[in-house]
Amino acid sequence: MTTFDLVLVGFGNVARRFVSLLEERRAMLERDHELAVRIIGIVTKRHGRMFSLAGVDAIDAASGLENGARLNQSMSSATASDDGSSVDFVQRVVNAARDRASRGELVVVETTTLDIEHGQPAIDHVRAALSGGAHVITANKGPAAFAHRTLTQMAADADRRFLFEGAVMDGIPVFNLVRETLPAVTISAFRGIVNTTTNYILTAMERGSSFDDALADMQSQGIAEADPSLDVDGWDAAAKTAILANVLLGASITPHHVEREGIGPTTAARATAARAAGSRLKLVARGERHGSGIDARVGLEELAGEDLLAGIEGKQNAIVLATDVLDEIAVVQRGGSLTHTAYALVTDLVTIAGDVKNCRATSESLASTPARRIR
Amino acid sequence: MTTFDLVLVGFGNVARRFVSLLEERRAMLERDHELAVRIIGIVTKRHGRMFSLAGVDAIDAASGLENGARLNQSMSSATASDDGSSVDFVQRVVNAARDRASRGELVVVETTTLDIEHGQPAIDHVRAALSGGAHVITANKGPAAFAHRTLTQMAADADRRFLFEGAVMDGIPVFNLVRETLPAVTISAFRGIVNTTTNYILTAMERGSSFDDALADMQSQGIAEADPSLDVDGWDAAAKTAILANVLLGASITPHHVEREGIGPTTAARATAARAAGSRLKLVARGERHGSGIDARVGLEELAGEDLLAGIEGKQNAIVLATDVLDEIAVVQRGGSLTHTAYALVTDLVTIAGDVKNCRATSESLASTPARRIR
Repeated sequence: MTTFDLVLVGFGNVARRFVSLLEERRAMLERDHELAVRIIGIVTKRHGRMFSLAGVDAIDAASGLENGARLNQSMSSATASDDGSSVDFVQRVVNAARDRASRGELVVVETTTLDIEHGQPAIDHVRAALSGGAHVITANKGPAAFAHRTLTQMAADADRRFLFEGAVMDGIPVFNLVRETLPAVTISAFRGIVNTTTNYILTAMERGSSFDDALADMQSQGIAEADPSLDVDGWDAAAKTAILANVLLGASITPHHVEREGIGPTTAARATAARAAGSRLKLVARGERHGSGIDARVGLEELAGEDLLAGIEGKQNAIVLATDVLDEIAVVQRGGSLTHTAYALVTDLVTIAGDVKNCRATSESLASTPARRIR
Repeated sequence: MTTFDLVLVGFGNVARRFVSLLEERRAMLERDHELAVRIIGIVTKRHGRMFSLAGVDAIDAASGLENGARLNQSMSSATASDDGSSVDFVQRVVNAARDRASRGELVVVETTTLDIEHGQPAIDHVRAALSGGAHVITANKGPAAFAHRTLTQMAADADRRFLFEGAVMDGIPVFNLVRETLPAVTISAFRGIVNTTTNYILTAMERGSSFDDALADMQSQGIAEADPSLDVDGWDAAAKTAILANVLLGASITPHHVEREGIGPTTAARATAARAAGSRLKLVARGERHGSGIDARVGLEELAGEDLLAGIEGKQNAIVLATDVLDEIAVVQRGGSLTHTAYALVTDLVTIAGDVKNCRATSESLASTPARRIR
């Protein structure tokens, strides 16, 4: 059993659900993945921070926050004083836990909200973590959308993981799928429906809802942001498109390089007209190799009724990968929730634990089977 | 770089495409997976066999077979005489290559055709290989459909792999997806469209084709068997359902435990009526946990038009997994071919090479980073 020490950077809904999910799955994680966790630090933007190498009670802290309390337990001014930025906090905590970091058993969990201008300070959180020898797992789109190549290289140089399975399709595996199950396949293009709020609004408008009512519905379900412009102006989809292009097609772009279109009240007429004609209006994310470059865009498209993406309604998401040897492969997410996103972080943690587990299995195998040559 | 020695049991279209695909992808496999291959033995049912520890020329042998020649090159009567069963051949070749087997560098590639009665002699090929310390990769549905639990246990005891990614969805990852990318998720049920011939015939009949014409079309494309009863009577789908139930739901069933229905000329009327009513008639494979047991069946179902499976037309396949924490996830195969199935074998080979590569990375890491504790 390996115990991983976790530092939570951001402690909103996703991080809190992650913490409760770890508790719910504790037995399974221990049994199947030889993985135990201890949370040693939490930092928030407005609700304080807490740190203890002996571990903090994150579930208790979450209830406290929900009752209006601040985080302020077990603070040591030397390592994590209440002043200083969140980036400073990460540096100090990682440094305080450097013996664990050196063993590969420290993980920074980045769940702050997306900054669509520069992806900050999330990128700096990731840098601080990797520089100190911690792994990073994140559900924040910023780091991979703005700095995928740099951060991936930093992680490789440090022999640590930088994982973000939850950034695009919540817990539905996309990056793991490509990394672990499609060896010797080249992906030439992708297209997909990756933003839940706009897809839900389009589906509702086809059926006669107004834009405002459908948006209010998404907000009341906690899916759209209070400021919905990230969703409806296509920025969320553009950030996901940048990540997909960076990871699957080897691009090095940001969301600002993605050609972008959003939806609004006037989209309703196009959506109903398309449906009446047997096709469907969808906000489609696309990326494609194009000579030496990459074309990436988010835009409204009228899809023929038999197109797989035309049938992706409401809160479903889907990505279709075009490959050289397997034609097209589609992965469809049939439901989304906070739990999905939180689960993605659990998946990433298990990936890290798997590295350690494989190491141990190998070292035992090396010890017990001298005849087995490891070249 | 690790060189794996391969023994091909069965040398039909899939195995021949596998051999040419290995050649086409040689540089990528060496560069990205540190994987090289040498084919040391081939055994067929009616066209002879060949064996040489120094390697045989499988591409030349394939052209020979296509020109009516038999395999008879480099035979040594001590190890692989032309008499004796294919199971004997596997035993003898694995024994002759036992030093490679002991290093985990011998792989038996089983691609004989499905025996729907008992899954034989494929199961015995797998047993002989694992007993001798070889890994097994197979595109044959028999072993996992009839003896999954036993063979998986044998492989685990021998510290070898028994992989069959190509048995259900060709090269589209299903088992790798679940094994590598869905940790800490419990699958409670699956449903899917897994037989190409029947799905193509149903789609064609909806559009006015006769059963016989559509079937002839599939036969001329080399997709349906010359004796199509395995497809149209639902046996192929039942074998895949048994595998999915055995692997994903922990069942221990055979195709004969799967409730089964097929299609025929009289199905046309139902298919056109369903389509006229806005739904679609599909041959659906299902498995579900049910109290302490597993319900598994293949049957015609009228699916509502908005059902994802209703949109799976022609030669597409799809599987929808019901999970506890991620709701439903669907994987859709948008095209199928011989190359897909052959590629699945390449994927399995890369999985085996990955074990060795991880070992080496770890042993280097152990050597160079004493501070990194591997517990």
